[in-house]
Amino acid sequence: MKLHDLIRDLQEPNNSKIVLLVADGLGGLPMEIGGKTELEAARTPNLDTCAREGICGLSIPVLPGITPGSGPGHLGLFGYDPLEYQIGRGILEALGINLEVGPRDVAARGNFCTVDAAGLITDRRAGRPTTDRCTAMCQKLKTIKIPGADLIVEPVREHRFVVIFRGGAGSELGDRVNDTDPQMTGHAPLEAKGDDEPSRHTARLVNQFVAEAGKVLKADAPTNMVTLRGFARYPKIATMKEVYGVKPVCLAVYPMYKGLARLVGMDIADAGTTLTEQIDTLRQLWNQYDFFFIHFKYTDSTGEDGNFAAKVEMIERLDAEVPRIKGLNPEVLIVTGDHSTPSKLKSHSWHPVPTLLWAKTVRPDAVVEFGETWCLRGGLGQFKAKYLMALALAHAGRLGKYGA
Amino acid sequence: MKLHDLIRDLQEPNNSKIVLLVADGLGGLPMEIGGKTELEAARTPNLDTCAREGICGLSIPVLPGITPGSGPGHLGLFGYDPLEYQIGRGILEALGINLEVGPRDVAARGNFCTVDAAGLITDRRAGRPTTDRCTAMCQKLKTIKIPGADLIVEPVREHRFVVIFRGGAGSELGDRVNDTDPQMTGHAPLEAKGDDEPSRHTARLVNQFVAEAGKVLKADAPTNMVTLRGFARYPKIATMKEVYGVKPVCLAVYPMYKGLARLVGMDIADAGTTLTEQIDTLRQLWNQYDFFFIHFKYTDSTGEDGNFAAKVEMIERLDAEVPRIKGLNPEVLIVTGDHSTPSKLKSHSWHPVPTLLWAKTVRPDAVVEFGETWCLRGGLGQFKAKYLMALALAHAGRLGKYGA
Repeated sequence: MKLHDLIRDLQEPNNSKIVLLVADGLGGLPMEIGGKTELEAARTPNLDTCAREGICGLSIPVLPGITPGSGPGHLGLFGYDPLEYQIGRGILEALGINLEVGPRDVAARGNFCTVDAAGLITDRRAGRPTTDRCTAMCQKLKTIKIPGADLIVEPVREHRFVVIFRGGAGSELGDRVNDTDPQMTGHAPLEAKGDDEPSRHTARLVNQFVAEAGKVLKADAPTNMVTLRGFARYPKIATMKEVYGVKPVCLAVYPMYKGLARLVGMDIADAGTTLTEQIDTLRQLWNQYDFFFIHFKYTDSTGEDGNFAAKVEMIERLDAEVPRIKGLNPEVLIVTGDHSTPSKLKSHSWHPVPTLLWAKTVRPDAVVEFGETWCLRGGLGQFKAKYLMALALAHAGRLGKYGA
Repeated sequence: MKLHDLIRDLQEPNNSKIVLLVADGLGGLPMEIGGKTELEAARTPNLDTCAREGICGLSIPVLPGITPGSGPGHLGLFGYDPLEYQIGRGILEALGINLEVGPRDVAARGNFCTVDAAGLITDRRAGRPTTDRCTAMCQKLKTIKIPGADLIVEPVREHRFVVIFRGGAGSELGDRVNDTDPQMTGHAPLEAKGDDEPSRHTARLVNQFVAEAGKVLKADAPTNMVTLRGFARYPKIATMKEVYGVKPVCLAVYPMYKGLARLVGMDIADAGTTLTEQIDTLRQLWNQYDFFFIHFKYTDSTGEDGNFAAKVEMIERLDAEVPRIKGLNPEVLIVTGDHSTPSKLKSHSWHPVPTLLWAKTVRPDAVVEFGETWCLRGGLGQFKAKYLMALALAHAGRLGKYGA
């Protein structure tokens, strides 16, 4: 029996409130042997109180050793097995710049590249153009018209953009289309081919678009050609409402996380641009929802920058807002991350993520501080992130007994 | 999505070196309550340093409570789920005595047994003959000729031998053939039957062989008949090169472990007969490979003998070679076992196996000594052995991000 089918059968909605506070990339590493991680180095009196009163552990986002991107990382936290729910690259890129993808759409990630006179790729990233130039080049791509389909082109940054192919009414576009990026220089962009009839339809549109792109960009070397990859339709996923019986809302600042939340059926609030504004919004919406996803970006971005001190400061800023959340008297408060982003590695990593679950129904453990070393001794042990939602619902009294 | 498919997608080969040092049957038990295990009793300053600098845990070879043989134990360490990759008994026996099994071959484990005048089995192990007698009886079996197939018969020890049926060019032999051992006395050996046409072909050869064996052994009671079991073809398994992107080599002394390594595509080095010679070989081959499997047998054999003191001594001998391995500056060094072999039980056991992973990218834990009790507090927690390769690759920087 699948996890979601089980939970769907057992859900018993009530009036409880669950807050999922995600500090992106929360987990870290000490910079040297014997040192502390960012979370351990940070002064976090409020999180420490939660850890003392609640139960802690380490979350494994996907599998041991596997480093997740933001998509799989968040799907896991939302209780959607990230190995089962695979979201195409094109969709994630579109979500990341706040593009809506509809049921007749196929989205793809685009790269500007450089081709020589013979049409062979000499630079797969077109010398990493500025984002301004990317935007200007996308303006040119927007002029392209293809019979039988609408095109939406939007810049992401540097050499990256998104293109959405929207089929006409009654025509279905498939997403089983190969990447046109040959993955090495010295080759022409690959022809798009489809694995089934609807995808062959998409492939024809793609090839027309690429041919036209070559024309409108002809004089714009080094950004004189494009490759497309990660063709994907918007996936059909059961909503959190259906699976868990909650009414969820997303309080995020960045489009990517709003998009991921929309994917699982959350309402998207306009939550401002700072954590303080996000918590203000939480307080305003407290009576309208029962599941609140709060996303805090800066623990990840400072980690990606390799800035240990800045990541520590961001964690302390997060800690300062915790009392305002607890003041609302949620039944369950979870603080975790979608993955680790150690400043030492300047990237996402596979290391398990410190996690705390605060509720009146926890079996307390010996943990007195919120940090990686303490979490290793926590009552949640090391667990797959996909089980966190079941734990949240259980602690909120929202899951019935399995079997008589 | 299966673990191997995931890793195959994410592999990012680089120049890092991974050493997997397997102390066969490493895990143990105290002889009395309050005592130490073999590993805890051993003086292991070098392994303790690795444990302090690295991350430790306990590996579960198959599932809790399941005691593995050498085959499943090693497949798990190589990252091949031992419940998915099931290697037939005939193949394991053949590997164990260094017999090569080719694509036209079906291998089986043979037992000498005793039958009465009516052909009914009176002793399924023929009174456990000496290995010398087993060898002499196999000489007689080697005289048997069967039209349409070649036979290879080799002794193992006591009542055990291996027989390989090699089909002629163009003829396919199947391995879906039942065991001929009725598993109890008072019955005649069972007739072999095949589940499909190629296996029916094998079954006919098997029945002819058994009939001929009865003739050539007629006067040799108690070794006057044979039963065959575990019919198996050489399995097709994706190589470590394909799945992980590593170039692996096996530094083992015993044929069984070389055979298991060959099964997953490792090159097999001539590594001498002592651990010191194995490490000499490691140093000689250091620039030619990037994954090194070193197998140390004697922690298992002393455990099987129930010789606690000898197992302690073997662990100390292993510890003494660790500096020569670390001196090569591997990116990742793993020390573990394929299963536990507690001297107290004189056999393989199901107890989780102490494991250490040493790398610059680990999140250190509180472990300061390499031993079962300390490992229980380690950062790797208790994990299935099949995840060890993913962890090794991650810590060596050889796995990309899953999803965007």
